[in-house]
Amino acid sequence: MSETTIYGHHPVAEAIRAGKGVEKVFFQQGLRGEMEKEFRHLTRDFEIPLAVVPKEKLDRMVRGAHQGVVAWLSAVEYFDMETVLAEVFESGKTPIFLLLDGITDVRNFGAICRSAVVGGVHAVVVPASGCAPANEEAMKASAGAMVKVKLCRVKSLVSAVDLLKSSGLQIVSTALGHRSKPIFEVDFKIPTAIIMGSEDVGVQSKLLRMSDAVAKIPQVSDFDSLNVSVAAGVVLYEVLRQRISG
Amino acid sequence: MSETTIYGHHPVAEAIRAGKGVEKVFFQQGLRGEMEKEFRHLTRDFEIPLAVVPKEKLDRMVRGAHQGVVAWLSAVEYFDMETVLAEVFESGKTPIFLLLDGITDVRNFGAICRSAVVGGVHAVVVPASGCAPANEEAMKASAGAMVKVKLCRVKSLVSAVDLLKSSGLQIVSTALGHRSKPIFEVDFKIPTAIIMGSEDVGVQSKLLRMSDAVAKIPQVSDFDSLNVSVAAGVVLYEVLRQRISG
Repeated sequence: MSETTIYGHHPVAEAIRAGKGVEKVFFQQGLRGEMEKEFRHLTRDFEIPLAVVPKEKLDRMVRGAHQGVVAWLSAVEYFDMETVLAEVFESGKTPIFLLLDGITDVRNFGAICRSAVVGGVHAVVVPASGCAPANEEAMKASAGAMVKVKLCRVKSLVSAVDLLKSSGLQIVSTALGHRSKPIFEVDFKIPTAIIMGSEDVGVQSKLLRMSDAVAKIPQVSDFDSLNVSVAAGVVLYEVLRQRISG
Repeated sequence: MSETTIYGHHPVAEAIRAGKGVEKVFFQQGLRGEMEKEFRHLTRDFEIPLAVVPKEKLDRMVRGAHQGVVAWLSAVEYFDMETVLAEVFESGKTPIFLLLDGITDVRNFGAICRSAVVGGVHAVVVPASGCAPANEEAMKASAGAMVKVKLCRVKSLVSAVDLLKSSGLQIVSTALGHRSKPIFEVDFKIPTAIIMGSEDVGVQSKLLRMSDAVAKIPQVSDFDSLNVSVAAGVVLYEVLRQRISG
């Protein structure tokens, strides 16, 4: 894994303000005053995860004088979800968005982005906290697709779903369970946002309740379920199959 | 990765004869005579890869007196393909076999086995040489599915395809390319063997020529293609969709 690390009060603050894809900010525990306030506000406004850590951790992260703040720069560019959605509608296409809820494994994240590009997904939407970082390992697992896909990082998936619903997209969550219907019974020809959850806990219940449909991939065996990146690939195939085969 | 290693003339020979899932045999370079002949015959008869290596390599592999031969025991049990096929027909089911041609990445191998179990594949068929080992790493990637799936190791995929064809299975290879038809246009309700090829070279041409159909997963972008484990999951989903939805 190789991520670009920057440090020091002004370099980090400027990178955030310039929208340079700051992935995460590490701030020194116990530091108070104007600088602390500045980074609290900056990270909140730009929806960047902020970790407050012991000075020793920062010392291990960089060799230079970090002044109490270190940040990871993302290997990818993030896009604004509303802007992407507007562009898709303007181009006359039928939106297909993919929301990732709790996908913390970088390889799965990368593999999903690869399938998203192949399947023509217009945007992959991830929460600012609780998602795998878009780092070099994710990039490798994506076979380079991380720079092709439109990644949107949002403060809250709930707000994102609210916005997508009010823009006319149906929300389809994927979940195993008796009440889910098979994905081939969902109409994917209309504007759609698909939510994939983590392998262990699935899609969070608040998002499930907001969904227009909860769908499952049929399976023969009750042994476990599919890997989440395989599951995402299958759902995206089903969308494409319906849209192509009329 | 932790594989069980055994060594010594009789322990290795007995393990092979007892069908204990010997994954690979390492034989000391330059050793001639009866023992060499014995292992050449044994590995050929039981279709086990044999690597002839310098003594130093064997010395590094085990601490004990290896007597010129070391072997890896598989973490899984292998089944005889013909027997499995006969059982499937006898049970009144419609066979769905999955053949892996040149899948050398252990994680992909494991992930494919996981999808195979979830999708109800009756047998995963791999060649004795040129396939990722069924080791602990594959096991982990499969979430334990390696011990649930019926793995068949064959000397030659060409002979295996011959046998499956003469048993009435249609052979469907997956490949990108203009002449392939989308997988949803293939009839998967009949007895079928699917061949998945490696990501770099695809299904070998001899197997392509033997195939009744060459099919592709539709994609929007011409950026690369799907990861092979995702592709396998998609094809198996399509089989299940057709068989469930009538």
